[in-house]
Amino acid sequence: MLRKLLFGRTLANREAEGSKMGLLPALPAMGLDGLSSAAYGPEATLGVLVAAGAPGVGFIQPVTAAIIALLAILYFSYRQTIAAYPQNGGSYTVASANLGAGPGLLAATALMVDYVLNVAVGISAGIGALISAVPVLQPFTLWLCLGVLVGITLINLRGTRESGIAFALPTYLFLATLGFVLVFGVIKAVLAAGHPQPVIAPPPLQTGGAETLGLWLLLRAFASGCTAMTGVEAVSNGVSAFREPKVKHAHRTLTAIVVLLGFLLLGIAFLANVFGIGAMDETAAGYQSILSQVIGAVYGRGWFYYLTIAAILAVLSLSANTSFVDFPRLCRLLARDSYLPHAFAMPGRRLVYSVGILFLAASAGLLLVLFDGVTDRLIPLFAVGAFLAFTLSQAGMAVHWWRLRGEAGHGVWPRLIINGFGAIATGIALAVILAAKFVEGAWITVIVIPLTLLLLRAIHRYYATLDAAILGEKDRRLSLPNYDPPVVLLPIERWDRLARKALNFAMRISPDVFALHLTALEGPDASAEQATTTQEKRLRADWQRYVERPAKRAGLNPPRLILEPSPFRSMVAPLLRTAIDLEKRFLGRPVTVVLPEVVAGRWWEMVLHTRRAQSLRQALLRHGGFNLVVATVPWQTAEPEPAEVIAEEEPEEAKPEEAKPEKVAVVAKAAAKAADKTAAK
Amino acid sequence: MLRKLLFGRTLANREAEGSKMGLLPALPAMGLDGLSSAAYGPEATLGVLVAAGAPGVGFIQPVTAAIIALLAILYFSYRQTIAAYPQNGGSYTVASANLGAGPGLLAATALMVDYVLNVAVGISAGIGALISAVPVLQPFTLWLCLGVLVGITLINLRGTRESGIAFALPTYLFLATLGFVLVFGVIKAVLAAGHPQPVIAPPPLQTGGAETLGLWLLLRAFASGCTAMTGVEAVSNGVSAFREPKVKHAHRTLTAIVVLLGFLLLGIAFLANVFGIGAMDETAAGYQSILSQVIGAVYGRGWFYYLTIAAILAVLSLSANTSFVDFPRLCRLLARDSYLPHAFAMPGRRLVYSVGILFLAASAGLLLVLFDGVTDRLIPLFAVGAFLAFTLSQAGMAVHWWRLRGEAGHGVWPRLIINGFGAIATGIALAVILAAKFVEGAWITVIVIPLTLLLLRAIHRYYATLDAAILGEKDRRLSLPNYDPPVVLLPIERWDRLARKALNFAMRISPDVFALHLTALEGPDASAEQATTTQEKRLRADWQRYVERPAKRAGLNPPRLILEPSPFRSMVAPLLRTAIDLEKRFLGRPVTVVLPEVVAGRWWEMVLHTRRAQSLRQALLRHGGFNLVVATVPWQTAEPEPAEVIAEEEPEEAKPEEAKPEKVAVVAKAAAKAADKTAAK
Repeated sequence: MLRKLLFGRTLANREAEGSKMGLLPALPAMGLDGLSSAAYGPEATLGVLVAAGAPGVGFIQPVTAAIIALLAILYFSYRQTIAAYPQNGGSYTVASANLGAGPGLLAATALMVDYVLNVAVGISAGIGALISAVPVLQPFTLWLCLGVLVGITLINLRGTRESGIAFALPTYLFLATLGFVLVFGVIKAVLAAGHPQPVIAPPPLQTGGAETLGLWLLLRAFASGCTAMTGVEAVSNGVSAFREPKVKHAHRTLTAIVVLLGFLLLGIAFLANVFGIGAMDETAAGYQSILSQVIGAVYGRGWFYYLTIAAILAVLSLSANTSFVDFPRLCRLLARDSYLPHAFAMPGRRLVYSVGILFLAASAGLLLVLFDGVTDRLIPLFAVGAFLAFTLSQAGMAVHWWRLRGEAGHGVWPRLIINGFGAIATGIALAVILAAKFVEGAWITVIVIPLTLLLLRAIHRYYATLDAAILGEKDRRLSLPNYDPPVVLLPIERWDRLARKALNFAMRISPDVFALHLTALEGPDASAEQATTTQEKRLRADWQRYVERPAKRAGLNPPRLILEPSPFRSMVAPLLRTAIDLEKRFLGRPVTVVLPEVVAGRWWEMVLHTRRAQSLRQALLRHGGFNLVVATVPWQTAEPEPAEVIAEEEPEEAKPEEAKPEKVAVVAKAAAKAADKTAAK
Repeated sequence: MLRKLLFGRTLANREAEGSKMGLLPALPAMGLDGLSSAAYGPEATLGVLVAAGAPGVGFIQPVTAAIIALLAILYFSYRQTIAAYPQNGGSYTVASANLGAGPGLLAATALMVDYVLNVAVGISAGIGALISAVPVLQPFTLWLCLGVLVGITLINLRGTRESGIAFALPTYLFLATLGFVLVFGVIKAVLAAGHPQPVIAPPPLQTGGAETLGLWLLLRAFASGCTAMTGVEAVSNGVSAFREPKVKHAHRTLTAIVVLLGFLLLGIAFLANVFGIGAMDETAAGYQSILSQVIGAVYGRGWFYYLTIAAILAVLSLSANTSFVDFPRLCRLLARDSYLPHAFAMPGRRLVYSVGILFLAASAGLLLVLFDGVTDRLIPLFAVGAFLAFTLSQAGMAVHWWRLRGEAGHGVWPRLIINGFGAIATGIALAVILAAKFVEGAWITVIVIPLTLLLLRAIHRYYATLDAAILGEKDRRLSLPNYDPPVVLLPIERWDRLARKALNFAMRISPDVFALHLTALEGPDASAEQATTTQEKRLRADWQRYVERPAKRAGLNPPRLILEPSPFRSMVAPLLRTAIDLEKRFLGRPVTVVLPEVVAGRWWEMVLHTRRAQSLRQALLRHGGFNLVVATVPWQTAEPEPAEVIAEEEPEEAKPEEAKPEKVAVVAKAAAKAADKTAAK
């Protein structure tokens, strides 16, 4: 089967317990998103500064310093979140627990939007790096982006269990190559007393720019650069994945990620300044990313250049993968709490939440198409969600410490201060980001987040109402006074083995069976050919001969045949009418409709059978009233294969040993008891 | 509702009896296809002849004369078919009845292919006429074609009942305007002694062409021109639609169509010759159809030119409609005889065979796309099917007379000769068409027809096998010895009102009920949160308290609760296993699975409910074994509205009077009887 080949066999629940991680495997798994933002963060900063020409680009260093200061604050804040929530310290959990359902949901919504954006930005930035190296590919930007998206989606539907090495290799290659370029570049610059000769000169900067250099420009540059911080929260989301002592390993990993990211940001800013490198227009021909220019200036375009670009491309594309791991899990939590359709909480054959994965892929694909796969246009929408989630999470932590202030004693206050300061700093950054990027695209995020929030709340209300109706806290006891059998209504086309089987079942469950044959169903043309009249006569004769007479002879209540024309060719309407009639006649006894159905086993048979039985069943269930039950008597066109289905659904040879005997015993016991009872009668 | 607005209310069977037709309404309804071929037949002939330059074009008159001779033979043949089959003398019917199922099916296949081509050719020729008049539209040829196709499809899904006038007006306008142009042109030519001055000179012809003038070229020109004869069989298909005396009216209509068509063909050929008009390349800029050139030469480009072109456009587009009327009816006959999926035989709400209409539209749309909507490329595929059907139909008629030769006496022999001659003539024409157009595209038809035939036969075999299995001629009596109630298996998630309702139903139909609760269904994440364990404990407690104890106290066999882990999160596998177990324990008693299902009433609710219950039911029906029945106990999320459904399905106020009282009486009688019986116990 194609599905098995593409996605592998079904996984058992216990196969979820993979090996727990230490620092080295965790760095790629959890740091990818954060580290890879070094590839587009400085680019976004320079993209703003370049508008003021060469003097503007000179301000890359102070702006980067401000970003790194904020990063440091976040680092200390998240250390504390990790220690306080060693199972799962995601923003949704922390904000829900400490600030209430509303802020928790807001954090979740913000994160969802940001995860979608992260996929689009990661992939488009990766393809941007590719285009810098291979300019002929530029016209195919969007198609390349979508191709990578499809690939990542397929891998994630299969499950990322075995793909640890696929992440580790590019991450460490990225760190090694880019780190080497930066260190080598800095040494060169220092040796040349701050004025090194570029191997390949970057395109010259204009001396004067379109915009004046001022606070507003610097704020906007800072806001754009803050995209480099997205992904820092990843470690706090997955502390449970570390091996013991969990918190220690998580702290180490977070430290490594933040230090490396800071080093990359600083190095890029320094070299961009020294070599006079500015951002270029991605949509114009000859586009080169900042990193491509930096590597070219430091090292030239040898094989090492292409290796580095390849590592960047791989890391950026894989950074989208962080969303594919976290988004479905967040959606599952929301679905568990009935804020999203329950399908989001159903683990698929490979233990991944397939619905979430597909939804993420579709949303990110839509974004890529809408923005033509250009990173520059996506960046302004980004970071709003992340910083909103940061702020809510930090504020939640502050409240957490405030509540603990009595019990935990003196250690609480510094923690409260750190998280409080984190909340304020990220809050201010959020305000700056919103103000600076509102017109360029942040307004879209500002509209989308509350709308999503309203949708989640509406879904929750729907489920809550339904659940309250079904659960019915009062009156839960089984109602026992009346166990009269139901009255059976059986639509019948002609007397054949399927009808006989259905009638046999009907007579097993009730002494009152009514068969309904509808004439004129085939429409005026068939009537003109008098096909229906013949059919009708034959059915009457068959019924008398094969049903009524044998039943009477056996002393049973013979099933009745009702013939009724259906002038509008509807099966639903006459059945509903008859069911209502029967319910009135046999007060207190529910009506059961027994539907004979030809069940197609092979896919191409779907075309050959009308979906009449299915749509009829659905209409009867929907409109047949509270007490109407529909029983389907199947006629299989292919041999049933229960053993194969069981083997396909539960692929392991060893069936769950602990369960089988108990169950069989229960069944056997019950059977024995039932036999006793029958014997006693 | 949109559907009602777009397509109107459901029609009752008896509304099919529209008013029967005489000559004047029948001419547009049945002659449209035949008459409109005058607009592309001569064009197709000239398209071949023009390859030999001006001398070639001069041969338009003898080629047209040959075509008209064949038309005359067809005329006399079909007169006889009409007289012999006054209900339905379609090729499928005539060939099946006289030559056997194989040739009948071949004729049907040929007709199906030709109907599809007729739609594509009619629409593309109509748009060709439009482009001649409004050249700026040329780049949009394909889109215009598809637009017209969608329009015709929608009209036909609504039913063409009330659209008589929509056909009559353009047909008579077409005959009047084109007839006037031709008569006026001929008078002008005669007055100018065969050399009239064109008002607008047609583009000059080359004196020498790419091909040499010879028999091969003339045969190909004849073959292409034969497309003008398609549609002549329409009258014989629908004799039952005429008013009495049917045959007389049908004969008159056929005469009118053939005479008018012959006149149009002759006139166009004469004027094209006199003015030196040749066919142009439709894909080149400045294209003008033959008719456009003729009208321009005779009359110039005044309002009358545009009126005539508009009439041609309308008639050609509507000629596609003939296929939309006949194709679904042919498919219905084939589906009735189990050669096509039975869905083709289901009359829709508006009494049309919607599946056939949609299939025709999709096939024609595909053809238009594949051939870019260019008539010239479609013509070579055309006419093969029509002439194959002609030949088979005429041969069938010849056999018909041969069989009657003893009984019917002296009148039979001339008839046999006429139809036999018709069969031979159309057979020869078919051979010519095949030979002449094989390379250009007829080979496609030659491949498609037998493949379709094989498909139809395969479908027939499938249905026949299935039908034989279900019908089971032996052993039709109701089997009576054993009416033990079934054993019930009830999957249960938690104890709520839906579960209670399902259990109540289960206990009504059987004393042996087993409830199966599957744990670990939600996967490892939910297990880690220990949500499942809590749920399990609660269910056990609820079951004891609300089910077992009350049942025991009431002296009933208490339903048993089985708990089983499903490590692969499958519901199907454990249910199948348990069902097989139960079947072994309770030999001779079938297992019935009772499925509680939340039934969504509003379309957007589909998103909010998993399709688990539906796919579970399907898997159980498919693989649960011959005796397993699945009963669905519904929980409606919205109030059932049986009255509204009945009103929607049967929109008339007056319910079928003759049926209601009888049925109620039957039900009442049966109820009374059942009550007696219960009382007697």
